[in-house]
Amino acid sequence: MSRWKPDPQGRLIVAALELFNEQGYETTTVAQIAARAGLTKRTFFRYFADKREVLFSGTEELERAWLDGVAGASADATPLAAVDAGLDRVAEMFVERHAFARIRAGIVAANPELQERELIKLQNLAGAITATLRARGVSANAAVLAAQAGVTVFHVAFAQWVEQDEPAAFRRLMEESLQELRSVAAA
Amino acid sequence: MSRWKPDPQGRLIVAALELFNEQGYETTTVAQIAARAGLTKRTFFRYFADKREVLFSGTEELERAWLDGVAGASADATPLAAVDAGLDRVAEMFVERHAFARIRAGIVAANPELQERELIKLQNLAGAITATLRARGVSANAAVLAAQAGVTVFHVAFAQWVEQDEPAAFRRLMEESLQELRSVAAA
Repeated sequence: MSRWKPDPQGRLIVAALELFNEQGYETTTVAQIAARAGLTKRTFFRYFADKREVLFSGTEELERAWLDGVAGASADATPLAAVDAGLDRVAEMFVERHAFARIRAGIVAANPELQERELIKLQNLAGAITATLRARGVSANAAVLAAQAGVTVFHVAFAQWVEQDEPAAFRRLMEESLQELRSVAAA
Repeated sequence: MSRWKPDPQGRLIVAALELFNEQGYETTTVAQIAARAGLTKRTFFRYFADKREVLFSGTEELERAWLDGVAGASADATPLAAVDAGLDRVAEMFVERHAFARIRAGIVAANPELQERELIKLQNLAGAITATLRARGVSANAAVLAAQAGVTVFHVAFAQWVEQDEPAAFRRLMEESLQELRSVAAA
């Protein structure tokens, strides 16, 4: 399922996930990760600030995909429709990451510090989406509410997606989650 | 505006806010806070784990008020209407805290560590609201989406409330924020 290319960064990610899985996140060291990948610690630190960042290496790409989608939505799209256009890009990007995402989700769920880190990353993502909506002329409150709703929709769908066996289901799960939000918010 | 009673906890909160304001949050020590309140460090630690917790002393009460409102909403209330019933209680509780909330907001905004703490507290609050909605028979996804939406509505209204001079406006600002969410989510 995994399609990591044999570049140093990809090898380090695979090695880290294997070790986190085998012996736990806490006890795994950067030296062990580098050794498993057949690389030096020096090379590790060229790609990651610390071992924790291995688990968040996709964050920037996720943000870029989402923001590109929001910025590129048609000019008459509502704020939430623009956010949803970003989710299309995100879903495409995630299809081939299902195996990584599943293992990663288990590690994060078992570690409160990683959960906090995830929370902060998602909040930063919501902030970036808010700014992109503002640049489209959306009012401040509507931008915050739509961005936050989008991140929650993503989060709910993501939790379901890593629980099941169909990598391509992410887009459908996000659509269902978005429909559920619309129905929850309907007066 | 402030109506802190002269109990030790209230005196410690007032003393801490004064000192944070005068000399900054970072440089203020627990010993200074206790001295300003005319109390000992020992007494301080009877009420707060550390100086940071002074700023989050209302969190439990906020959560209790909100959850009581959700649990007590009429049986046929939609998930979001139940969340909104909690916001009524929260608004009542906050009216007399306007002065505290304004000063506190400035301190939190200037300190990334406090912002992270606030984010985590809000996320825990969303989790508790989700659980209360689940106990009302709301499905898992709808509960997460409604709880998260409620916390965002609260957050948006709170940010406006601390910027203005009318303590009683919180309920109206939350209602406006909720209406904006409904309109953002409308297809």
